[in-house]
Parts: sequence; structure tokens; C-alpha cells
Amino acid sequence: MGSLAGVASTDSPGNGGRRGRRPGDSGTREAILDAARARFSGEGFRGATVRAIAGDAGVDPALVMHFFGTKQALFVAAMEFPVDPTEIVPRLLGPGVDGLGERLLRFLLGIIDELGEANPMLGLVRSAVTHPDAARMMREFLGEAILDRIAAAIDADRPRLRADLCASQIVGILMARQILALPELAAADRELLVGIYGRTIQRYLTEPLDSS
Amino acid sequence: MGSLAGVASTDSPGNGGRRGRRPGDSGTREAILDAARARFSGEGFRGATVRAIAGDAGVDPALVMHFFGTKQALFVAAMEFPVDPTEIVPRLLGPGVDGLGERLLRFLLGIIDELGEANPMLGLVRSAVTHPDAARMMREFLGEAILDRIAAAIDADRPRLRADLCASQIVGILMARQILALPELAAADRELLVGIYGRTIQRYLTEPLDSS
Repeated sequence: MGSLAGVASTDSPGNGGRRGRRPGDSGTREAILDAARARFSGEGFRGATVRAIAGDAGVDPALVMHFFGTKQALFVAAMEFPVDPTEIVPRLLGPGVDGLGERLLRFLLGIIDELGEANPMLGLVRSAVTHPDAARMMREFLGEAILDRIAAAIDADRPRLRADLCASQIVGILMARQILALPELAAADRELLVGIYGRTIQRYLTEPLDSS
Repeated sequence: MGSLAGVASTDSPGNGGRRGRRPGDSGTREAILDAARARFSGEGFRGATVRAIAGDAGVDPALVMHFFGTKQALFVAAMEFPVDPTEIVPRLLGPGVDGLGERLLRFLLGIIDELGEANPMLGLVRSAVTHPDAARMMREFLGEAILDRIAAAIDADRPRLRADLCASQIVGILMARQILALPELAAADRELLVGIYGRTIQRYLTEPLDSS
């Protein structure tokens, strides 16, 4: 589980002219992150370009890529995700779709239960439900960084719909267990929920959608 | 499906001294609703008493009951629910738990798809995710008006946990199909989703929770 610090300190390879941090790096990095947050919020994940973000921060686009490596990784750092989904999703998908439901749930309930109010997913959900621009940003980032990747691993009809179905149960768990804190669900044993919800997710991933 | 107007114009029986509306009723009714919104928001559904709401509105508690019948119905009117869950839930539960998943989903997706941005559930979710007091209010009202009633109809272990599990999928559908508008889920045929999610809800209601 890469921490934010781990994500943030990543130096991408392939930029031989730069070696590690210079005294001014920290301020520059913050300026890039501020510019990224503003652009992503205003223009969505797809609309905001690295070039425009670099321009706002007064730096060269190559420096943005030097610090962050990819636009997805820049987004993850700007939004202060506790973990980097671009690392986590491939790891969860690694053993294949078999058992993915339980692996995903064990990971997600761990995040929800252990981070509590410090869970940055909360801030994203709060923004998404109150600001249409933030909802678009979430939709685009979730789609590209997580749901399209899950869909690509599914060997069944309508793979992206299946990924969206999984997302609908997962965001509902966050809402019901943490935000609304429905009493029996909030108190339920985590491994019991891993089993119950894991089966739901597995069904969405692999079983026939139309059983009629 | 009772409209808000239908809910709002309900006169409860059993108060023989009053007959229909008097010229001043409309202003009094609005004053009660304003007081109710403030009390429910600040003190939760359980904490806010009809007596305190009546006091804030400068009327007798009996008049509040004359207008609204029950505290739940007062809440429904104050929150401008499009439908009255205290009417809907017993109707959906009427034929028993068999097939409840599909009945519930067909009803809910109808609300979500037909009301769009006019869906007052959106306002409640927005408040709940941004204000802890609103989350408590939702939790208490949902619990008493909907989830405890569903739990009472379930003939299986841990009935209230089962109702909470259903709520977690339903709020997730609202989030994913309408608020985040995940593309394949937002575009999916409603009856396909009634089948898919109906089976999930039915499983939460009736099947063994611990399959290990």
C-alpha cells in the first residue's frame, strides 16, 4: 500500500539531466499541485492538460513529468489519495478475476475502517455530490485509472458496465458504513462484510447479467 | 405514488374540532415546516420533539399532529420527499419478502430516472455527506421509517443488518447512476438493472450471510 509520501517522492526515470531534489523543488512541486487541483476541478481529469498545469505553475511540462511521471499520478498526488490506484488496481487484478471480489473488499474496508475521517475518499465523495465539476472529474479519473482497467480484465459481456456495477456497490459501502453509519452495518465484522460484498462484486464481474 | 402535494394536504382524522383549512392555515403550516426543518437538522430525527417544533412555530402540539398526523409524516413534508416512505414501504412489503428486490428496484429506478435533478433524495444525500448533523438525521429517519420496517418483514438472521446491506446498494445506485453518472451504468436499460440489482437485494434479504 503506497503511502502518499511514497507516491509523492517518486522520481520518474528518463530525465537524466536532473538528479534528486534541489533546494527549490518543494515549492515548485507545491505550485504544480496547486495548479493541478485548480485545473482538474475546473476542466475535469480529461480536459486538464499537463501543458496547461505547467503553464499555470510557471514551469516546463517536462518538469511536471519529471516530478510525477504520468497525469494519473499527478492527479493522485494533487488529490492526496492515501493509496495510488494506478498501483493498487494492477496488484489486485494480478491473480486474475477469480477471487477479485474478496481481495477488493478486504482492501477497501481496510482503508475505510483504518483511515476513518482521514480517508481522502470522503473529500472526493463530498465534492462530487455537491459540485457537478467535481463529479465529472471523479467520473473521468475513476473511469481511466480504475474502471477501464478492471473492465479490460473481465472475460464476459459488457465489461465496463460490470465495472460500473462494482463501483456502485463500493461507493454505497462508503456511504452506508462510514458517512451514514447505519448502525448494524457500521458495527458488522469486517470479514463478514468481505464475504457478503465480495460475492456481490464477484457476481457483477463474472456471472450472467440477464438471468431471465 | 403519493405526490408531495398529496402528502402535504393530508389531514389526519381524529381531531373533530377542526374541519378543513381555515384562511390562516397555510402560513401556520409553513411556520411549522420551517421550525421542523431547523429542529430536525439541529437535533436529528429522534432528538427533535413535536412539542419543541410546535413551540418554535408558536402553535399547540395538537395542531402539528392535526396537520401531519405523525412525526414521520411531518419529517416527510418538511424534507419535501417526492413520495412518502411511510406509505410506500408497507405497500412494497405487502406481498411479502418474495420478489421484494425487484419491486423495490423498479420503484427506486423509476424515481431516480424520472425525477432527475428534481429528486429530493439528491438534496438529502448532499446534506448527509457534507454535514454530520444531516447524516444523523438521515440515519435516524431512514432507520425508523424504512429500515426497521423492512427488517421486521425479514424471516432470517440479523434482519436489520440485511436492511442496512440493501440500503448500501441503493444509495450506491443513486451515487453511481445519477450523481457520478458512470457512463455504462447511466445508459443501461432500466429493466436490466432491475434484474441485476433486484437479485442483489433479494440475496441480502433472504440468503445465508455467511457462506463460508
